[in-house]
Amino acid sequence: MSAWTLPQPMNRALALAEEAAALGEVPVGAVVVRGGEVIAEAHNAPRETHDPTAHAEILAIRRAAQALGDERLTDCELWVTLEPCAMCAGAIVHARIGKLYYAASDPKGGAVENGARVFEQPQCLHRPEVYSGMGEGRAADLLRGFFKERR
Amino acid sequence: MSAWTLPQPMNRALALAEEAAALGEVPVGAVVVRGGEVIAEAHNAPRETHDPTAHAEILAIRRAAQALGDERLTDCELWVTLEPCAMCAGAIVHARIGKLYYAASDPKGGAVENGARVFEQPQCLHRPEVYSGMGEGRAADLLRGFFKERR
Repeated sequence: MSAWTLPQPMNRALALAEEAAALGEVPVGAVVVRGGEVIAEAHNAPRETHDPTAHAEILAIRRAAQALGDERLTDCELWVTLEPCAMCAGAIVHARIGKLYYAASDPKGGAVENGARVFEQPQCLHRPEVYSGMGEGRAADLLRGFFKERR
Repeated sequence: MSAWTLPQPMNRALALAEEAAALGEVPVGAVVVRGGEVIAEAHNAPRETHDPTAHAEILAIRRAAQALGDERLTDCELWVTLEPCAMCAGAIVHARIGKLYYAASDPKGGAVENGARVFEQPQCLHRPEVYSGMGEGRAADLLRGFFKERR
């Protein structure tokens, strides 16, 4: 029996989350893909950079927009290991990300299927297609392990 | 008769919004203050920088955190000319901003008293004190003038 293979961008996002954990950052990773090509990637880095906005999604979106020379990422996908928070969901709207894939849901901090449900607001200017759950076991294990070690 | 004088940080935020308009950016300005001292300031700059996250608040928060070498801005105030969006409200939470002052409300894009109402979510980890309205006339005039010229 073989385990189902995760799509490559989610595998990469999980590897980035592992890199974050090794640096003492909350383990979340994100990858921006366009037409099958990786445009940008990042892991969570607020502690290292003294930047409260340095979530993996924000960094990956900023790098992708820089790389493409365009503040709109309409034909891009964002792959991330955890449900985006309100800040990151808002950035996804501003960047006009076409498709969002996230692994684990986040009842405490998420703002897609939880909390502020940013994309469900009537005023929301752009709604990405959202797919969740693939890789959620690995993503959640990483987070649980990280916080357990620190307790 | 004398017009009521706006507090200096809001005056500065409005001047920054005017600078943004002159550069073709949506006119919003923001200032971070601690103990009466300006720590950081910024105007909206997503077009100039090809960065969809480059709202005035995000830039001012990032600069303040860099200046203080700390991702937490607990004893800081954020003064901004427009009601923050979901992205910026989320950043305010992550940065633990103590007090938020904003001029004009934003029924279309705001997420404090409108839309996602980020600080009112039960899961919200930090709620700044919020004061709104001072300077709202000037802030709203700037925005109206900007969008009227572009129509």
